[in-house]
Amino acid sequence: MIGTELLLGDVLDTNSQYLARELAYLGIDCLHRVTVGDNPQRIRECMSQALSRADILLTSGGLGPTADDLTTECVADLMGVPQITDREILAHIRELFAKRNFKMPVSNEKQALRPEGALTLPNPVGSAPGIIFVLSPEQYNPRGITGDGTKVIMTFPGVPSELKAMWAQTARAYLQEHYGGSSIWSCELKHFGIGESALAEKYAHLLDLQNPTVAPYAGRWECRLRVAAKAADQDAARLLAQPVIDEIKAGSGHTLYGYDDDTLESTVGRLLTERNMTLAVAESCTGGLVSERLTDIAGSSRYIKLNAVTYANEAKMKVLGVSAQTLETHGAVSAECAAEMARGMLDLADADVALSITGIAGPGGGTTQKPVGHVYLGLASRAADGSVVLAGKQLSLGDRLPRAEIRWRTANEALNMVRLHLLGAL
Amino acid sequence: MIGTELLLGDVLDTNSQYLARELAYLGIDCLHRVTVGDNPQRIRECMSQALSRADILLTSGGLGPTADDLTTECVADLMGVPQITDREILAHIRELFAKRNFKMPVSNEKQALRPEGALTLPNPVGSAPGIIFVLSPEQYNPRGITGDGTKVIMTFPGVPSELKAMWAQTARAYLQEHYGGSSIWSCELKHFGIGESALAEKYAHLLDLQNPTVAPYAGRWECRLRVAAKAADQDAARLLAQPVIDEIKAGSGHTLYGYDDDTLESTVGRLLTERNMTLAVAESCTGGLVSERLTDIAGSSRYIKLNAVTYANEAKMKVLGVSAQTLETHGAVSAECAAEMARGMLDLADADVALSITGIAGPGGGTTQKPVGHVYLGLASRAADGSVVLAGKQLSLGDRLPRAEIRWRTANEALNMVRLHLLGAL
Repeated sequence: MIGTELLLGDVLDTNSQYLARELAYLGIDCLHRVTVGDNPQRIRECMSQALSRADILLTSGGLGPTADDLTTECVADLMGVPQITDREILAHIRELFAKRNFKMPVSNEKQALRPEGALTLPNPVGSAPGIIFVLSPEQYNPRGITGDGTKVIMTFPGVPSELKAMWAQTARAYLQEHYGGSSIWSCELKHFGIGESALAEKYAHLLDLQNPTVAPYAGRWECRLRVAAKAADQDAARLLAQPVIDEIKAGSGHTLYGYDDDTLESTVGRLLTERNMTLAVAESCTGGLVSERLTDIAGSSRYIKLNAVTYANEAKMKVLGVSAQTLETHGAVSAECAAEMARGMLDLADADVALSITGIAGPGGGTTQKPVGHVYLGLASRAADGSVVLAGKQLSLGDRLPRAEIRWRTANEALNMVRLHLLGAL
Repeated sequence: MIGTELLLGDVLDTNSQYLARELAYLGIDCLHRVTVGDNPQRIRECMSQALSRADILLTSGGLGPTADDLTTECVADLMGVPQITDREILAHIRELFAKRNFKMPVSNEKQALRPEGALTLPNPVGSAPGIIFVLSPEQYNPRGITGDGTKVIMTFPGVPSELKAMWAQTARAYLQEHYGGSSIWSCELKHFGIGESALAEKYAHLLDLQNPTVAPYAGRWECRLRVAAKAADQDAARLLAQPVIDEIKAGSGHTLYGYDDDTLESTVGRLLTERNMTLAVAESCTGGLVSERLTDIAGSSRYIKLNAVTYANEAKMKVLGVSAQTLETHGAVSAECAAEMARGMLDLADADVALSITGIAGPGGGTTQKPVGHVYLGLASRAADGSVVLAGKQLSLGDRLPRAEIRWRTANEALNMVRLHLLGAL
C-alpha cells in the first residue's frame, strides 16, 4: 500500500481489506502487507523484500500523474528496465479528457508509461491503468530478488472504485487462472433479524467442520454465514458445500434473505419483479436513503415509479394527505402519521405496496418519550377486494448511535419489512 | 499490526489510521507499517526489522488470552528474556471477571505475563494490558538489531476502544515527552471542477516547498490539496501554513469548495442556511441519492422540506407537471424535461431553489443519441420580481462507468451546480 497519506492517517485504507478478502476467496495466502510512503528508495526496498518472500506482489497507490506518484517508475528501476509510452493508453487518457472538454495536462502523459516488458492492467473507470509484470528468475535474480519460479507484480491505483473495477474485470481471473491452486468455492448466506452470536449458537455444530468450513461474520446490521469448500475444481467444491447450505436454508427460514451479492434492496427488487408489483416509498428521517438503495439496482424502474422525501410537516400534508389533526395530536413521529403517509403514498403513486418511514435520526430532535433512534415504519397495500391494508412497526435503535447509522439501520428494517410482506410473512 | 484476521480481510483495520494521525500530531515520522498474521516466526522477523529501522515500534493485536495471541511472547523471545507474571495485573484481571460474576478462565493468566525488564502499559477498559519495553543498544545489538540509541517497544490490543484508551491515557504522553519534537498542523483544501493534474500544474511552485508541504490527492471525483506545516506547536505550525492557504484560496476561486471534513452537500447546506433559503430536489436517474446526501447533514430539515424521486414518466407528469408533449417530443432525458421538472418542483415544494436530474445511469437504456452517462440537470429559482429563472447543464459521463459511479458523479455535479448558483457563480 503506497502513499504518504496512509502513513499520516489522512486516508483510511479500505483497499487492504478488499484485496485481503478477495485473495482469501481465491485460496491465495497473503502473509505480509506493508504500507510505505511516496519515497522511491523505501518503495523499491519494500518491493524487493516482498518479491523475495512471495510469488505475487500487489500494489495500491502511486499511479497518479503527479511527481509523488512513483510506483511504475520504482518497478522499472527495481527491474532495471526503461519505461516506455503505451500509445493506446495515451490515446485513451486523451479521449477521457476530451469527453469532459478538458485539455489533457502534460503531466498525465506519465500515466501512459509502463516498464518495458510489462502488460497493461486496464482501468475501466479512471485514467491510470496498472501493469501486470510477469518475471522469470533470470530477470529478477540478478536484481537481488531471491526465488526460483515465475513471479508477478500487479499495480493498482489507490482510488477504491478504480482498484475494485480493475480487480473484478481483469486481475481476479488472471490470478485465479495462474495461482488459484485447489479450488475454493464459497457462498455467503445472508441473514437479517438474527445476531451473530445467536447464529453461531444455532449452528455451533457446523462451525467445527473442516471441509466445508462454516464461519459467521457480522456486517453492517446483518449477519453472514460463509460456507467454503475446497476441492479439485469448483463443481466438486460446490457439491461438498451443498448439504451444509441446505441445512442452513432449512434452519434459518425467513431470517435468511439472500446469498453473496444479494442485498435487502436487490431481494426486494427480485420479489417485486417476480410478482409484477410496484413499490412506492415515502421517507422522512431516512431522507431518500431507501429510495436511493432501491434504485441502485439496475432495472428498478420496472417496480419503482415514484418516491417522495417528505421532510417537513407541510410536505407530509400537501403531498401525502397526512391530516393536520394527526400531526397535531400524535406528531410527525408517530404510528398514526406513518400509516397516513403509507396510505397517501399508495394512492399518489398508484402502487401495489407503499412504505413509509418517520423517525428521529438525531443528533438533535429527541425527547424523553421519543428519543433519537425512535422510528415508525408504515406499510400500505391493497387487498383482493381493493381495500387498503395497513401494517406498522416501531423501532428503538438507541440514542447513542450516529445519525448515519440510525438512517442505515432504519432503511434495513424498512426494506426487510417490505420483503416479509411480499413473502406473506409479515 | 498483528492478526491473521487482518490478512484475511475479516476485519477493517482502523487502528492504523488512528495511530498514524496521532503520530503525525506528535511530529513523529512513521515510515513503515507492516501487517502480519499470528505466526511467531514472522512476527519476530517483522519486529526485528522494524526495530532496526526505527526508534519506536508500536504493535496492535495479539494480546488476548488464546493460543494465537503471541505478541508478548514474541517480544520476550526476540529479546531473549523470560516472561514473568505481574501479580498486580493478575489481580486486576481477576477483579474484572469477578465484577461481571464470571470465574476467570485459566487462559487469562497469560495476559498478566510480561517480558522481564518491561513496564506495564495500563489498559483502563479491558483485561489485556500492553508493555513499554525500553531497550539499550547493549540489549538489542546482540539480538541482531542494528542501531545505537535507546529504542522502545509499546504493545496495544487490537480492540480499537482499548487501544485508543491506552494511547490517550499513557502512551501519547510518554512518546510526546521522549520523542515528540515538533508539532504538525495540516489542512485539506477541497476542490471540485478541476483535475488532480491541473491542480498540481497550477500550484507546481508550491509542491516543492519543504515546510509547509503541499500535496495533491484525488478522491471520488474531487481533488484535495493537503497543506502541512511543522513547528514547535500547533499555533506556530498553523501560522506557517497560512500564507500558502491564502494563496491557494485566492488562486482557486470557486473550484475550492471547502476544507477538511466539508463535503459538497455540507457546503450546499451551509450556503442555504446562511441565506435562509430552502432547496427542493426532483430526481430521476439518481433515484434519491442527492436527497439522501443532503439530508445526511444534521440540521438539514432547516433547508430541505420536500424532495421527489420521479422515476416514471407518469410520476413526472402527475407530481411535477411535466407536459406529455415535452415527454413525447424530447423524451424524459432532455434539457426540456429537466427544466419542467425543476420548475414543477419549485412550485410543489414552494422552495427558493429547485434542482432536477434526469439521465441514463445504465447499464441499459442508452441510445446512440443519448448513451449511458448522458444526464441533464435543471435548476429553477425565483428572481426578485417573482419570475422563475431556469438554468441547465448537460453531462456526458461516459458509457463505460458502472451505474453507481454515474449516479455518484451526477450527484456531485448537481450539488456543485446548486453551490455555484448560491454563490452567484453559475
